Amino acid sequence: MAIEAARLSPSLAAAAFLARRPPPALFPFSLRRRLPHLRVLAGSSGGDGRVVALSSSELRKRRGLSSSSGAADPASGGDEKLRSLRRLFSRPDVGIDAYIVPSQDAHQSEFIAECFMRRAYLTGFTGSAGTAVVTKDKAAIWTDGRYFLQAEKELTHEWTLMRSGNHGVPTTSEWLNDVLPSGCRVGIDPFLFSFDAAEELKDSISNKNHELVLVRGMNLVDEIWGDARPKPPKEPTRVHDIKYAGIDVPSKLSFIRSHLAENECDAVVISMLDEVAWLLNMRGSDVPHSPVFYSYLIVEVSTATLFVDSNKVSEDVLEHLEKAGVKLKPYEAIVSEVERLAEKGAKLWLDSSSVNAAIVTAFKSSCDKQMKKKGKAGKKVEKEASSDEPTGVENGTVNAVYNVSPVTLAKSVKNEAEIEGMKNSHLRDAAALAEFWCWLEEEVCKSVPLTEVQVAEKLLEFRKKQDGFIETSFDTISGYGANGAIIHYRPTPEDCSSVGSDNLFLLDSGAQYIDGTTDITRTVHFGEPSPRQKECFTRVLQGHIALDQAVFPERTPGFVLDVLARTSLWKIGLDYRHGTGHGVGAALNVHEGPQSISYRYGNLTALQKGMIVSNEPGYYEDNSFGIRIENLLLIKELNLANSFGGISYLGFERLTFAPIQSKLIDVSLLSPSEINWVNDYHEEVWDKVYPLLSGATRDWLWKNTRPLLDVTH
Amino acid sequence: MAIEAARLSPSLAAAAFLARRPPPALFPFSLRRRLPHLRVLAGSSGGDGRVVALSSSELRKRRGLSSSSGAADPASGGDEKLRSLRRLFSRPDVGIDAYIVPSQDAHQSEFIAECFMRRAYLTGFTGSAGTAVVTKDKAAIWTDGRYFLQAEKELTHEWTLMRSGNHGVPTTSEWLNDVLPSGCRVGIDPFLFSFDAAEELKDSISNKNHELVLVRGMNLVDEIWGDARPKPPKEPTRVHDIKYAGIDVPSKLSFIRSHLAENECDAVVISMLDEVAWLLNMRGSDVPHSPVFYSYLIVEVSTATLFVDSNKVSEDVLEHLEKAGVKLKPYEAIVSEVERLAEKGAKLWLDSSSVNAAIVTAFKSSCDKQMKKKGKAGKKVEKEASSDEPTGVENGTVNAVYNVSPVTLAKSVKNEAEIEGMKNSHLRDAAALAEFWCWLEEEVCKSVPLTEVQVAEKLLEFRKKQDGFIETSFDTISGYGANGAIIHYRPTPEDCSSVGSDNLFLLDSGAQYIDGTTDITRTVHFGEPSPRQKECFTRVLQGHIALDQAVFPERTPGFVLDVLARTSLWKIGLDYRHGTGHGVGAALNVHEGPQSISYRYGNLTALQKGMIVSNEPGYYEDNSFGIRIENLLLIKELNLANSFGGISYLGFERLTFAPIQSKLIDVSLLSPSEINWVNDYHEEVWDKVYPLLSGATRDWLWKNTRPLLDVTH
Repeated sequence: MAIEAARLSPSLAAAAFLARRPPPALFPFSLRRRLPHLRVLAGSSGGDGRVVALSSSELRKRRGLSSSSGAADPASGGDEKLRSLRRLFSRPDVGIDAYIVPSQDAHQSEFIAECFMRRAYLTGFTGSAGTAVVTKDKAAIWTDGRYFLQAEKELTHEWTLMRSGNHGVPTTSEWLNDVLPSGCRVGIDPFLFSFDAAEELKDSISNKNHELVLVRGMNLVDEIWGDARPKPPKEPTRVHDIKYAGIDVPSKLSFIRSHLAENECDAVVISMLDEVAWLLNMRGSDVPHSPVFYSYLIVEVSTATLFVDSNKVSEDVLEHLEKAGVKLKPYEAIVSEVERLAEKGAKLWLDSSSVNAAIVTAFKSSCDKQMKKKGKAGKKVEKEASSDEPTGVENGTVNAVYNVSPVTLAKSVKNEAEIEGMKNSHLRDAAALAEFWCWLEEEVCKSVPLTEVQVAEKLLEFRKKQDGFIETSFDTISGYGANGAIIHYRPTPEDCSSVGSDNLFLLDSGAQYIDGTTDITRTVHFGEPSPRQKECFTRVLQGHIALDQAVFPERTPGFVLDVLARTSLWKIGLDYRHGTGHGVGAALNVHEGPQSISYRYGNLTALQKGMIVSNEPGYYEDNSFGIRIENLLLIKELNLANSFGGISYLGFERLTFAPIQSKLIDVSLLSPSEINWVNDYHEEVWDKVYPLLSGATRDWLWKNTRPLLDVTH
Repeated sequence: MAIEAARLSPSLAAAAFLARRPPPALFPFSLRRRLPHLRVLAGSSGGDGRVVALSSSELRKRRGLSSSSGAADPASGGDEKLRSLRRLFSRPDVGIDAYIVPSQDAHQSEFIAECFMRRAYLTGFTGSAGTAVVTKDKAAIWTDGRYFLQAEKELTHEWTLMRSGNHGVPTTSEWLNDVLPSGCRVGIDPFLFSFDAAEELKDSISNKNHELVLVRGMNLVDEIWGDARPKPPKEPTRVHDIKYAGIDVPSKLSFIRSHLAENECDAVVISMLDEVAWLLNMRGSDVPHSPVFYSYLIVEVSTATLFVDSNKVSEDVLEHLEKAGVKLKPYEAIVSEVERLAEKGAKLWLDSSSVNAAIVTAFKSSCDKQMKKKGKAGKKVEKEASSDEPTGVENGTVNAVYNVSPVTLAKSVKNEAEIEGMKNSHLRDAAALAEFWCWLEEEVCKSVPLTEVQVAEKLLEFRKKQDGFIETSFDTISGYGANGAIIHYRPTPEDCSSVGSDNLFLLDSGAQYIDGTTDITRTVHFGEPSPRQKECFTRVLQGHIALDQAVFPERTPGFVLDVLARTSLWKIGLDYRHGTGHGVGAALNVHEGPQSISYRYGNLTALQKGMIVSNEPGYYEDNSFGIRIENLLLIKELNLANSFGGISYLGFERLTFAPIQSKLIDVSLLSPSEINWVNDYHEEVWDKVYPLLSGATRDWLWKNTRPLLDVTH
């Protein structure tokens, strides 16, 4: 699944910042989450524990998010929510002139629980990316090109739509500096901004002498949402079996503690939900698509504390945690615990790119208090750790090391059990996909056309039949014809096309299994593709092959390889506007860092043995068709004839096994080695997947893995 | 000719600095010049105006640089030069504890005049790269791996050799911080450090409370060199004909003035010698290999002043300058002129990465004085211009814009006349090379073997016969067998190999012509290459072809393309430790910025239409052989079937036309399109070069441009 490269690299914004260039994100703040349209809610239907797809419109109706359900009241001459929000501005315990409502939860999650969809509730705009800013007399919302049309439909006239990325459109802080008189107070909920983002915001509005006010103790949107606000998720957590996790929790904690010792720290705060889940070999289902649960974790030298709603923790899980010496505290106790650590004089490791401003500033002010109390007897101020990563943060008098979380890299390098689980789940996923494509090929020929949504639902059915299936790993992108050219297209039942045989059909989908996470895109044509479509498809395929076949020395950052996926397109003046590869978690988030393969140059993370990346070049012809070919790849060490420089050379092993439609390949454009690649890959697909299939599906796989004829020579 | 990528990117060190990583240069300070071994001195022999090659040992004898000619006096129990230098430390007008002697001249030149070879004079070490640091009781010199052996031979026991790049070797400032007691005074000649380099040095030694002392009014090495010091060069300058320059001086000055206006500046100081030469359509011969002359230029809104020894300026040149409204002042008057501008309240554009600390600090202190005089009536302090380039400099109270010189980019983008001159000179160079290779192939078969130096001298003879030849554009790298594996190998008559038919011969050479500058490398075997040599050569060739054939969107920085030249080598675990391409001047320096194609990621300069870059991948097997294949390429806009994003797509046009030895190609490794590339290139070589040849050479060219047989299919 294609993503903006910026989304997963906390270091990117910092690097760009240090280089005095604007960060390459499309968006004013960090872009880590997406509000799903076609939602999959665990356990929301029947007693079978199965999941059910709900359309975004249905969801909106259920949750009161829709603008038609009372958000704006034209009769009363204005937007009641806005009026309520503004009334709160002047409350003595608030006292602000503007309030910023981002899309985030407190953990920088990509997928968030509904109770945290405050921006969607306030504005009525349900797109995944957006930041709302409300002043006493103005209301504006920033979103990017994916959502301009949707936002225009959903927003009332009281909202000004700011089309991010368009020429002349200011950033939120530029706009605030423009519309507010000098010296105003701009409020935020400090839980919803990473400390770095809050600092950046503070800096940029200080140009106009505005003060950033961290409104503590309440979220103003929650105040007006009141009882209608959905309850925080209370889904039970589970133990992620050691046969899939590979390394037990005590070993992982030891590893973190050795990092603490190296950095002379007493404790680290882990706030990314997938990092907590990975470190504790636990999984949950508080949000769609990601098997995570709302929590924080503090690892100290001899203890570890999980901050979580104890109702989510069964006896089994509790026993699992106790064995590893992990105590429980309430989710809300995180701030007071951090303050307690400051009082104890503990030195804290904080990843200020992910830990929210509420936690970091609580620690800072507690440290300050301690300092004042003890005078100069307190521990001396530390400069940041000796890391290559820039932090973008001044330490002041805080007894902390600002550094990327010690879990980030460890989690990205998969162990043997995780690799095994990823391989196994990919084979089952491949079987489901073969059944699906075989079915769809038949179905398209029939007289009643299927919609993009129906097709996605059927794919879900095939996946559900596979062992260990849990849910989709993201909203399925099912785009026929021109819809395929919309990179982040989400069909809705009310507004989607039929899948026919006159154009290309792009299908980007993935699943969460008990043992692994998948993400695959195939583009097919059920009729006769045009020469143009074949040429473009073949160029995309050549890029896919070039990256797949890359060999590179250790310490190579992913962006170095990005060009390999583009050269074939560039040769005829084509390109695509997204990165080529993202990291993927093992039975965890479908998007994870720190590595990426992107044309943006800020992410210097080296690709390492054991990491998983997607390989997904594409081409999108506006209003016409879209093409993407995506496999997941495991990075492995190669045993070559030479090793110049005495270092390792790395390459890729494919995890994804599904036919690439031969009909779309213009073989005359391929070199002999590219033809061999296609034939070898198809042979491998057949060998690995046919044992899982029978009957018509097996025939379909056989037909679709036949060698290309070498027509060039 | 291969260079360290860092050498030509002033922005690189700054970017690396901002990213808090150590700059990737091999060397403590900027590496822009090289002390030649096989020197070519214009007009140093006979009355024919021809140039003559002198070996470095001969040069050393002539100039008293050799350590055997009295640098160290073992009888007196120590190094007299060091003693003399240290005596100066305590003079009241000096008062320092250490003195740093870099290799630079005052203009960051790659090739420098002998009177500025102070580090070589002081230390006896004549390698091109090195920084000497002398304290009251210690003397150390830093150089890189190219020169370890030579330095060991040339240095006396009083000098400690610091092997830069080796594990645990400190930088100069780390060493100073280590060996000096806290609070010492470290002296430099401010003319020999760019302002940025001086600031960086100041910062790094301030850790130990050392003070950086700019020793003005004298260079301490010159003081001890005394009358033996060579006189500054007084070679006459000449007008670079408009038919080669393409754009007249008034137009170029207008262009610079429009940039002054945009940046609200009153004047700019141009200090790079090639920038002065380019801007004024003048050439000189003050240094070997580069047609430049020692000078500074200040362009103001309505005037321009050239600071140069007036003896170098003939009537013709004077008339040329007067027509363009350029006045003359003595070379030494630059500092007082800059002070005068400060007094006038002029706002100055300074490229602090190239303008030396003497000039910048003179301007700063003059501004400070003005400020104090006028109180707050003076012009208000300006922040740096709105440029993407980081400057790494705090502006303080200086009325200046620190930005890359406005000439840098303009010079790198060649106009039609410059392109024409480059093409024409490359054809004549190709003819000389064909004659040379034809001769050498015969010669190697004879019984008396030729040395690497003799071969280089013969090449020079063939080039001299070409119209408009001036001199070599750098020291010829003529390396047989294992010598070819030394990337910056320079043979000397006393210490060089014979060129035989048992191993590879690498020849990297270039010339300055009246209308253009060339730089070409070919690797050949006069006997039977081993399969290993053929495999490596073919991999290098594949990298060369991949880069040559690249198509890329506008705004692509060069480093994005570097990987294309390496993938074929990486596939078998090989690599090379230098960049792939550097900029080349038009009848100017063989190395110029701002663009480069390198595996180092700091240089974000986009490759642009009209720029020239080298394409020179290689492979070097230590103690065995070296391979490099180098052509120069012109960047041009392509007319493709598509232009996704509505932007231009760029590609390369070859300027260099010389056969690539077919014998060394393992055709079975090539794809059909690679075979076509070789055949097309050879056809082009034949078509373009044969009209300039006759007889045996024409036969040689015919034989060496025959198509490869396609043995793969």
